[in-house]
Amino acid sequence: MAKIYVVGMGPGGEEYMTQEAAAALEASDVIAGYKVYIDLIKGRYAPLGKELLFTGMKEEEKRCELCLERALSGKTVSLICSGDAGVYGMASLMIAIAKEHPEVDIEVVAGVTAALSGSAVLGAPIGHDFCVISLSDLMTPWELIKTRLIYAAKGDFVTVIYNPSSKGRPAHFKNACDILAEYIEPSRVCGLVHNIGRDGESHEICSFAELKNKDTDMFTTVFIGNMQSKVIGGRFVTPRGYKSEER
Amino acid sequence: MAKIYVVGMGPGGEEYMTQEAAAALEASDVIAGYKVYIDLIKGRYAPLGKELLFTGMKEEEKRCELCLERALSGKTVSLICSGDAGVYGMASLMIAIAKEHPEVDIEVVAGVTAALSGSAVLGAPIGHDFCVISLSDLMTPWELIKTRLIYAAKGDFVTVIYNPSSKGRPAHFKNACDILAEYIEPSRVCGLVHNIGRDGESHEICSFAELKNKDTDMFTTVFIGNMQSKVIGGRFVTPRGYKSEER
Repeated sequence: MAKIYVVGMGPGGEEYMTQEAAAALEASDVIAGYKVYIDLIKGRYAPLGKELLFTGMKEEEKRCELCLERALSGKTVSLICSGDAGVYGMASLMIAIAKEHPEVDIEVVAGVTAALSGSAVLGAPIGHDFCVISLSDLMTPWELIKTRLIYAAKGDFVTVIYNPSSKGRPAHFKNACDILAEYIEPSRVCGLVHNIGRDGESHEICSFAELKNKDTDMFTTVFIGNMQSKVIGGRFVTPRGYKSEER
Repeated sequence: MAKIYVVGMGPGGEEYMTQEAAAALEASDVIAGYKVYIDLIKGRYAPLGKELLFTGMKEEEKRCELCLERALSGKTVSLICSGDAGVYGMASLMIAIAKEHPEVDIEVVAGVTAALSGSAVLGAPIGHDFCVISLSDLMTPWELIKTRLIYAAKGDFVTVIYNPSSKGRPAHFKNACDILAEYIEPSRVCGLVHNIGRDGESHEICSFAELKNKDTDMFTTVFIGNMQSKVIGGRFVTPRGYKSEER
């Protein structure tokens, strides 16, 4: 049966991939992805004779069509995604593009998304109920993003922000902080992680009041704690509710 | 330096662990965890001469204290968690319990949490903004859980429910569905995955109207789509916003 794996690679280097993900790449004749992600793995997989296919940003549909074409010609294909295969990943689009071809088996392989890998760097910010919101309004109306930010704050969720800003929308993150300021006290514990699992990884913990003046880009993941979040031993921790966490 | 890794194992078998997680276990003298999770890995690690430590449910604080004790005696320790190390995991508690011991380095190793592994089984339900809510009221007041369910629905987040019910609280999940029924239309796409990545894994896709009568237990993860979610080729998909997803 024709086969396409949609593979979550985790945040960066191969050590963050699951063994299931590595096995999918090993089993594939073709590995396709965004150029930046293909560059991360080509050192290992190009010498094995696999075809490496890439397209640029905003060429996701073309990328999926190429994968489908290769699968229909009898090749086993892995379509790789940074982080998880589903979370703002390619799984939904690949399933949609292949929908007229039930003879193509699409297997989604989960990976460690930035909410988890960034959390590990900071300590344990998402130890309790949380939500993940992307500030990219390329395909989502800004009004909906704003509504979600407000309900996340009203529900006292730990909030993880993906794509806080980019060259095309430098002010998005500051705007989001201004919206949240009505609901979140200035001392709330927050954190940022840049380039998780890649060269130049860095992180910092700050207050919500300080957050809006921090530099962010499309490789930054932002964490806003809930009302219980605190700093313990220099780490950002959201308690689950154990007595030892409160002492 | 004394070292404790808090390791997310992913959903079940070793193939779902990251290579970083496997390396942490390899490097450890002691592996500690809830008995069920130690059983999953003992076949591989007991023969390597590692000490395997376990405590039962509700003995999480004792488990962390044992880890700290072993680390202070010079052993390298891995404390393993199902799924991720942070998401309803042990990272927050381990950091809290070791806070008087800055000489102990605590390294959190992220893993694939059930929101991601379950999503991969169903297709791509969390292709857009989502939240994760546990229905366990052992340490969280039911009123807060209820508030979060309502705001998640009002914000049109894809909602992933952990711990939908257990022997001690069989009606929690039905109660949650009743609360959500005020905000979510009966035809909304939902899904359930049981025993993700373990023996007896099963899944189904259903409507929100059908959801409340489904059997759930502490090994079930429930997915409630957003207003855009749909079934494509038998898979549960939440579109990111590409035209090909709408056709």
